[in-house]
Amino acid sequence: MSDGMVVGLDVGGTSTRATVVSLAGERLGAGRGGGGNPTSHGAERAAEELRVALSAALAGLDPGLVRAGTIGMAGVARLLADPVSRDAFDRMWHDVGLRCPYEIVGDALVAYASATAAPDGTILIAGTGAIAAEVRGLTLDRVADGHGWLLGDAGSGFWLGREAVRHALADLDRHRPLGPLGTLVLTELLGSTQVAARPRDTVDVLVQTVTRRPAVELAGLAPLVIRADREGDPAAATILAQAARLLAANVQRIRPADDSTPIVLGGGLLTGDAPLADAVRPALAARWPSALLVGAGDGAIAAAWLAARTLPEVTDPADLHRRLIGPTPGR
Amino acid sequence: MSDGMVVGLDVGGTSTRATVVSLAGERLGAGRGGGGNPTSHGAERAAEELRVALSAALAGLDPGLVRAGTIGMAGVARLLADPVSRDAFDRMWHDVGLRCPYEIVGDALVAYASATAAPDGTILIAGTGAIAAEVRGLTLDRVADGHGWLLGDAGSGFWLGREAVRHALADLDRHRPLGPLGTLVLTELLGSTQVAARPRDTVDVLVQTVTRRPAVELAGLAPLVIRADREGDPAAATILAQAARLLAANVQRIRPADDSTPIVLGGGLLTGDAPLADAVRPALAARWPSALLVGAGDGAIAAAWLAARTLPEVTDPADLHRRLIGPTPGR
Repeated sequence: MSDGMVVGLDVGGTSTRATVVSLAGERLGAGRGGGGNPTSHGAERAAEELRVALSAALAGLDPGLVRAGTIGMAGVARLLADPVSRDAFDRMWHDVGLRCPYEIVGDALVAYASATAAPDGTILIAGTGAIAAEVRGLTLDRVADGHGWLLGDAGSGFWLGREAVRHALADLDRHRPLGPLGTLVLTELLGSTQVAARPRDTVDVLVQTVTRRPAVELAGLAPLVIRADREGDPAAATILAQAARLLAANVQRIRPADDSTPIVLGGGLLTGDAPLADAVRPALAARWPSALLVGAGDGAIAAAWLAARTLPEVTDPADLHRRLIGPTPGR
Repeated sequence: MSDGMVVGLDVGGTSTRATVVSLAGERLGAGRGGGGNPTSHGAERAAEELRVALSAALAGLDPGLVRAGTIGMAGVARLLADPVSRDAFDRMWHDVGLRCPYEIVGDALVAYASATAAPDGTILIAGTGAIAAEVRGLTLDRVADGHGWLLGDAGSGFWLGREAVRHALADLDRHRPLGPLGTLVLTELLGSTQVAARPRDTVDVLVQTVTRRPAVELAGLAPLVIRADREGDPAAATILAQAARLLAANVQRIRPADDSTPIVLGGGLLTGDAPLADAVRPALAARWPSALLVGAGDGAIAAAWLAARTLPEVTDPADLHRRLIGPTPGR
């Protein structure tokens, strides 16, 4: 094993994380920046956030020893087709002292590789949006959903938040008392649980409040569904179960019935202490009983590993994956 | 019967229609203007479109003989709460020579009254949006949906158009050949039925094309569902059946199970030669077997009738309704 290093970046809409690791599997540095997607932030500002994260990760290290890099982010095809963004990224890379090549890959591939080194498998992500993708030879193959909140993202945080408001509106239309979920929605959006003497007046204010804001902010209400479910509201449980069904159906669009490769669950709604993951796992296990179901981990380290495995001196990429990320846990 | 007259206005998002009728049931004049909703067009421009329609309807008539008027439009509560809009409407009314009082009522009430003089019943409307309302004593009582495209309008033209695109996206995700509906969607949005070698590229272009435009324009794709259904596409039939179920469920939110009052079907998708109406009727008839199901008619005449029935000299409003609109047809 040489003293070479690799860098990985996990670029998201709200934060960018960079990591430097040695080819022996040691974590040497880490850094963080703001949201770095050129589509939402513009090429220059996105590149600047990547520069901030990379500089911090490289502090005290010799960037000349970095042998390869991988940047994981959404919308790769759009970025690669845009010379302005590519140029901004190239300059940023050079400015922090890096002289090695780098690759830009989909955030879904990075999320997949954060959990397993298996070349073939499936990644299912539910955060603000929702997407599923087939991985073949550690590249993204077929993709399902990820169509955005207007046309898709079924079972995502946006979807959960919208269903939460729709549930409150349906109870108001029926002149029914609000349950725990409806009460949480009114408190969050109107600052009060008071329903007007004419419930339609509350409906109108609720609709106006939501439609005045950017639509995607509905994703911010997803935690209310999880909280109401924990409080025992059957309506919230029904919404979560429906989201789990939609996410599993989305995987079914791209994953063959007899596939036994791993399925990785990623995104804020499917990692950590996530009731949606608890609902999705049995739905996936029922359809693919022999598949390993595993939660996504550190995307920046996964990106660094994706960079490392292409180097000739990394003779056992699976071993390096174990050193960096640990053994793939069982279901 | 005096020689008195009444005026009615049916104000929509794209056109405004005015009618003058005699208290004997004769149609004396009609006029048309552009979209006249102050919420979407601004108070002054909306009032101007109403003035254009009213002036044409009153041409050759003595406005001093008009005894009452009714304006039907969406968003009445918002309009009545806005002094600027009310003032603009008052000035417009005076400018065309009218000296009688006028009332502003919901477009749903006008649609209801265009089909029946029965004081109690239900109105279900599906056009760009979707709304259902209970009518009690010829005023709107409880309302269901009408929550707008982001949060509701289930089964509406917007909903149909969005489902049409979602269907095409699902087939592209699955790498399935497009059926008649998917082909119509691609032709309409991309001007070609050619799917890229990587179908995901076509998915991306389709999503970008839709999201670049105002979301509500998805309603313009609703006719594609109807056309694909006529061509025998089972996917289009499934979407229409689902829309019919959502619309019937919406009525169920507000209409008691044992109600035998009439149900009026209004809006572009439920009147005329409408396959969605063909799907909704049996769903409604199954739940309310003794209810008369009747299609909406001329809103401006209905608005004029709503104005006339408040006058002391109109002793038999139901008879005037028959003279103006004809007998209520059976199911």
